[in-house]
Amino acid sequence: MTRFFCLLVTILSLFTAPLNAQIPPLERLEPTFWWTGMHNPNLQLIVHGNRIAGRTVKINYPGVKISAVNKVENANYLFIDLHIAPSAKPGNFVITFTRPGQKDLTYTYLLKARNKAANRIQGVTAKDLIYLLMPDRFANGDPANDVNLQMREKGLHRDSMYSRHGGDIQGIINHLDYLKDLGVTAIWPTPEIENDEPAASYHGYAVTDHYKIDPRYGTNELYRQFVAACHAKGLKVIKDLVHNHVGTEHYFIQDMPMKSWVHQWPAYTNSNFRDMAVMDPHASATDKKVMLNGWFDRRMADLNQNNVYVQNYLTQNHIWWVEYAGIDGFRLDTYPYNDGAYMAKWAKDVTAEFPRLSIFGETLVWSAANQAFFLQGDKVGRGMDTHLPGVTDGVLKDAIFEALNGKEGWTDGVNRLYAVLAQDFLYQHPNRNVVFLDNHDMSRLLSVVNEDITKYRSALALLLTLRGIPQLYYGDEILMKNYSAPDGLVREDFPGGWRGDKDNKFLASGRNKPENEAFNYLRTLANYRKNTTALQTGKLTQFIPRNGIYVFFRYDSLKKIMVIYNGADKEQELDTAYYQEQIQGATEAKDIISGKTTGLKKIKIAAKATLVLELIIPKPAN
Amino acid sequence: MTRFFCLLVTILSLFTAPLNAQIPPLERLEPTFWWTGMHNPNLQLIVHGNRIAGRTVKINYPGVKISAVNKVENANYLFIDLHIAPSAKPGNFVITFTRPGQKDLTYTYLLKARNKAANRIQGVTAKDLIYLLMPDRFANGDPANDVNLQMREKGLHRDSMYSRHGGDIQGIINHLDYLKDLGVTAIWPTPEIENDEPAASYHGYAVTDHYKIDPRYGTNELYRQFVAACHAKGLKVIKDLVHNHVGTEHYFIQDMPMKSWVHQWPAYTNSNFRDMAVMDPHASATDKKVMLNGWFDRRMADLNQNNVYVQNYLTQNHIWWVEYAGIDGFRLDTYPYNDGAYMAKWAKDVTAEFPRLSIFGETLVWSAANQAFFLQGDKVGRGMDTHLPGVTDGVLKDAIFEALNGKEGWTDGVNRLYAVLAQDFLYQHPNRNVVFLDNHDMSRLLSVVNEDITKYRSALALLLTLRGIPQLYYGDEILMKNYSAPDGLVREDFPGGWRGDKDNKFLASGRNKPENEAFNYLRTLANYRKNTTALQTGKLTQFIPRNGIYVFFRYDSLKKIMVIYNGADKEQELDTAYYQEQIQGATEAKDIISGKTTGLKKIKIAAKATLVLELIIPKPAN
Repeated sequence: MTRFFCLLVTILSLFTAPLNAQIPPLERLEPTFWWTGMHNPNLQLIVHGNRIAGRTVKINYPGVKISAVNKVENANYLFIDLHIAPSAKPGNFVITFTRPGQKDLTYTYLLKARNKAANRIQGVTAKDLIYLLMPDRFANGDPANDVNLQMREKGLHRDSMYSRHGGDIQGIINHLDYLKDLGVTAIWPTPEIENDEPAASYHGYAVTDHYKIDPRYGTNELYRQFVAACHAKGLKVIKDLVHNHVGTEHYFIQDMPMKSWVHQWPAYTNSNFRDMAVMDPHASATDKKVMLNGWFDRRMADLNQNNVYVQNYLTQNHIWWVEYAGIDGFRLDTYPYNDGAYMAKWAKDVTAEFPRLSIFGETLVWSAANQAFFLQGDKVGRGMDTHLPGVTDGVLKDAIFEALNGKEGWTDGVNRLYAVLAQDFLYQHPNRNVVFLDNHDMSRLLSVVNEDITKYRSALALLLTLRGIPQLYYGDEILMKNYSAPDGLVREDFPGGWRGDKDNKFLASGRNKPENEAFNYLRTLANYRKNTTALQTGKLTQFIPRNGIYVFFRYDSLKKIMVIYNGADKEQELDTAYYQEQIQGATEAKDIISGKTTGLKKIKIAAKATLVLELIIPKPAN
Repeated sequence: MTRFFCLLVTILSLFTAPLNAQIPPLERLEPTFWWTGMHNPNLQLIVHGNRIAGRTVKINYPGVKISAVNKVENANYLFIDLHIAPSAKPGNFVITFTRPGQKDLTYTYLLKARNKAANRIQGVTAKDLIYLLMPDRFANGDPANDVNLQMREKGLHRDSMYSRHGGDIQGIINHLDYLKDLGVTAIWPTPEIENDEPAASYHGYAVTDHYKIDPRYGTNELYRQFVAACHAKGLKVIKDLVHNHVGTEHYFIQDMPMKSWVHQWPAYTNSNFRDMAVMDPHASATDKKVMLNGWFDRRMADLNQNNVYVQNYLTQNHIWWVEYAGIDGFRLDTYPYNDGAYMAKWAKDVTAEFPRLSIFGETLVWSAANQAFFLQGDKVGRGMDTHLPGVTDGVLKDAIFEALNGKEGWTDGVNRLYAVLAQDFLYQHPNRNVVFLDNHDMSRLLSVVNEDITKYRSALALLLTLRGIPQLYYGDEILMKNYSAPDGLVREDFPGGWRGDKDNKFLASGRNKPENEAFNYLRTLANYRKNTTALQTGKLTQFIPRNGIYVFFRYDSLKKIMVIYNGADKEQELDTAYYQEQIQGATEAKDIISGKTTGLKKIKIAAKATLVLELIIPKPAN
């Protein structure tokens, strides 16, 4: 989510509290259920109900103890601290809320056994290829859930970019074979949990119920089945989390537990969106406060992550989804806008429960150093370890496009790509960064390269052969295009995802020739990468560009891949003598795209083209 | 020294060794003398003489012991390891070189007492203002030394940019009052030691004798007097060192002690000048070797700093100059081209002798992170501490010019300056970086701002109020201009430095009106800074630019300075309400340039202008 998509105009004031007369006596209790045997034995229940704070709480279950019952400013809330001993057994228990002279209120709480299946919570690494999609825009697998009259946004208008289009989880499930065939190994849908906002609810970044899949996408159970179906096919699932803000229609915003639940301002104050104010040792306190505590949008209440109740709420919810559905990784929205200390604690708490879970944060910042500021290991001496394994590597993305579109200079054009990768000394684990060419907030790859198919192919070749976890954006494989500003046309429907669509580009027969060529090119590369550990976890050695030609190698004990990108505007012949350090005894290589064998001494390469060559290593004579 | 000035064309091959028949039996012994009571008790003498290795070495002096006599490939060298005990007294002793059947050779070695005067070796810090000059181009104080027929370059041609012009150390001494009046506190001359090269010897970066001031500049004794004269006037002196290379006419290049004394290549190989190959975790060994071991220029032999004899030679020579002349700081030429491990050891060894000595390295690199790679404290996790306190902050220079000349964007124009300073988190001590607008390798300030006097003034105001050690380049104060490429006209003579010059711009009467206005502007700022600790060591707080206006504060317990730069192309009125965090109770300020008092609520500021305002802090009521 970037600020460029905050086009909502309806304004709701948080500071004129709504009347709460309609709140039931026990409206809600979260987490809705939990598990035995968690790493952290403590659990904080949030209870919302009309004047619930006036009641006494009772539990009687072996191994479960109430450590504290916390009353807060708003009497409609209680925060119950439970201690669940390792000895506690899975089962139900009743939580009773009593008040003299009034009828007891009860909630039957379920403690489940943890699911330890091996193909759950696997982590997403550089071995994977991520496919990012927007559930509302990918495929409509269940037209019955398209319109939900219980929800604030009722319409479905496929011709309006900001309306709902009807895509859903069943639509994703229906196309897992398509994705697997393409070579994808992990799916990242933008948030699927409820966004019951009156407008533009489709994007998913204005959550209104943390424990519920949006009914227009499906049910919690369907989401769990989706994850299981992915795992059964060898695919992984990433969940997109928003720590920074929630939709203003969220129950705990409509009726806030306490004033400090969100960042409050005398008058509505936008964030300045300047992540630098967080890093800058010279930052003014004012700028830093506006950056962190200013709101992303009037419809997105900025949670106060210094509030320990907010912290517990978010962390537990995220843990809940992993244990519930078995998801493999988290993508963290708007990472720099969050409180740094809390996010570090969050990462530790979450990975304490799920050591294999992978995490990466969205950072759309200026340079590699600014990305590194947010990364684990405190490589740039921030003074604290964020415990964040990876970021969305927008700096490398920009460098790839500079190599494709820019004019060559000392650090421009193809030299920028070299220079940015040379800055990998700033990262503890550069291979944990997510590398991408576009996403739902950005102009699409094909448009950024001005619809030049050679550049398009080079971009994808670089994406799939450089270090990091590569991420595709849905539709790029079938040449979808357009620009992010001003109309958001980068979130169009995948053709064929809806019954009655004129074309079905999920099928080769529905794609035209250029689309099939693009698809097949990417499929070839993706499947080659899938079976080539050198491109996943192999070492990278790059050379200073020479005459506009950038050469690097990826290799491990099994294979060595030589990648050659010609950044010049004309065909060139590369004399490979300078690269002997890496080529060594090889005299021939297999061109991964054409499948043909080619000599290695002199290599012709077209303007802006990229060759991916697997060296044929001579066997030592016996 | 940057590669852009390597325009020498005479080519000498190192690999056709000269005939050595003319070498005297004891040609030279270095260090020429030494001191008692040094931190390091070890000293390695290099002895050069015809077949000197065939002789036995004898010393008889209390406290001085020969630890080893090292013979190397070339029999014309001996390396004698001495141990000088703390008990050794100052005095002379004879070193005797004997060989049966031949006459003894002797060298009377002097061990001096160290000079502990308080105003020697003071260090150059952010309290200072450095003035960089080229001795050949600043002022000719002694025409008698202009031409030296003993030296290879004999001519003096002031109309030729690459010839010698006759400037010298006496010329600097003659203008110390001029510099002091301007507000300068430290002088950095480009290297003054002998450069007996056949052409372009004036620049000083092709050393041919490490222990001798170039006779065309003066004598060692005159150099020592120069430093003492500076100290007497409250000025400091920086010495410009070159570790990476020496002139090919150097005695130890003409007759090398061993093949590994310099970096050898099968055929002449230039450095690729790509500092990134040193930092890059993915660098090819080939690129890295070419970067570090490739030659800067055919006339500059690339010393092998992995050779321990080379290491000792350089380190001792540098220590020798400090103890001999009492200089205050070192500037290290072409820092990234040197061997990192040796440079770290060098810095430790030198500061062990002189803890107050300051050091900064020339780094003309891409970004703050790349600068930080070379700095002390291993802030970016290089894996070793360089012990280098500061660098020449070319990245901040570029950002200042981007703020002056660039078009505003998220990180462009004035926002670049903000963004670069925000990256100070990458440094352990940003205030130790040397900030500058130009030098002898770069286009001059006035030309870079297209001769716009408002921008010129803003550049100087920013230079003198931002963090770091500010450095001026000679002549900028009198509006000297021109571009570094292609003609090198940024190294022109200071008008008035030579007898018979048409104008003498060292004097107000010799300067025209714009020159006097520029001079007086800079003098006002420099002298204000000299007396304002807030601008030297005070805290910096910067604000995100708003409407193209960049505002920052420097402050300590004594004063608070508000600096406002209007990067827009039109006059603007700044509403200071946003800056209350810093302005607090102040309602008025003193404009440092005009001396006038101004209100603080709304401040008009011309396009591209900078205001330096000292806040008038209301006294608390009693």
